[in-house]
Amino acid sequence: MPHIALPEGLPGIRGAMAFRPETAKPLNELVEILLLGPSTLTPAERELIATYVSYLNDCHYCQSAHGAIAAAHLNGDEDLVKQVKADFHYAAISEKLKTLLVIAGKVQRGGKNVTAEDIADARSVGATDREIHDTVLIAAAFCMYNRYVDGLGTTQPQDEALYRERGKQVARDGYISVSKTYLPTEALAR
Amino acid sequence: MPHIALPEGLPGIRGAMAFRPETAKPLNELVEILLLGPSTLTPAERELIATYVSYLNDCHYCQSAHGAIAAAHLNGDEDLVKQVKADFHYAAISEKLKTLLVIAGKVQRGGKNVTAEDIADARSVGATDREIHDTVLIAAAFCMYNRYVDGLGTTQPQDEALYRERGKQVARDGYISVSKTYLPTEALAR
Repeated sequence: MPHIALPEGLPGIRGAMAFRPETAKPLNELVEILLLGPSTLTPAERELIATYVSYLNDCHYCQSAHGAIAAAHLNGDEDLVKQVKADFHYAAISEKLKTLLVIAGKVQRGGKNVTAEDIADARSVGATDREIHDTVLIAAAFCMYNRYVDGLGTTQPQDEALYRERGKQVARDGYISVSKTYLPTEALAR
Repeated sequence: MPHIALPEGLPGIRGAMAFRPETAKPLNELVEILLLGPSTLTPAERELIATYVSYLNDCHYCQSAHGAIAAAHLNGDEDLVKQVKADFHYAAISEKLKTLLVIAGKVQRGGKNVTAEDIADARSVGATDREIHDTVLIAAAFCMYNRYVDGLGTTQPQDEALYRERGKQVARDGYISVSKTYLPTEALAR
């Protein structure tokens, strides 16, 4: 049961956002820009970073939700998502994404863990400053979203099919668009 | 030296925001709503929560900046800010704020650390669901801001007078207004 009286029937961050639509607006806008906005990293790559950080933070809802969105961007390849969580060094992803996942993992433990060597490694396989910036901010942002979802004790369904269905929808329509189904109009960004 | 080529002369999060104005917009809007928007918690109380979490995350820039803003809201009482960081149980703050700081500290370590007992303690001294929600989200959000600032290796001045001056300005004019001095117009929220 959630720690506070969240609206019923809205799992994870949806219940928290519906409880406080004023803060839902920038929270949705941030995730939309970071994970779906214009970028030289694909949406799948960015969702894998979000999923990996949520996995490290042991947030069931966020790793399931973003893992499903990542899989939807990857034509349903759920095995790749699992491999990235289990040990991304052996996953069929680019060397660049591997170096960015190293940085994301450091940020998850605390920003000071990122070293000049981590940055040099990412640059040596083609990562740009903008890609490094966005990786750091995606990792930092999911340290927020994960704590928000778990800190309020939100309900977190176990049924993978629910996440799978919603993942396809978000991958197709985006976060802000899908949030219109459960947030009041005044909370919608843009 | 920052890990990526951030604009010079802008310390801490300002350099990161100027590098990526698209994400600066929701980041500024979120902090403005949480710390200065309508609330039954005073701006000073909310800045103390932000300062305490930034202190736990060992982020020099954020604990200095928000500590100075808190002090500005408290008629310059920097000793109270120091006492909250050192041991808030003995600080001259309300019992309600003490219970909210306990929750914030748990969220900083990870959302799952918050217990039903922590929530009951806060309620027993008058905390509302909205106050508990905002405390969890402020703590979670500063786990993001702190990692963003440290993860990019931003410059973090040691001179307390700089933070003091800026703290008065933000306490008086707000985050979005002050950000106009260093962000391009298109990045300004509202």
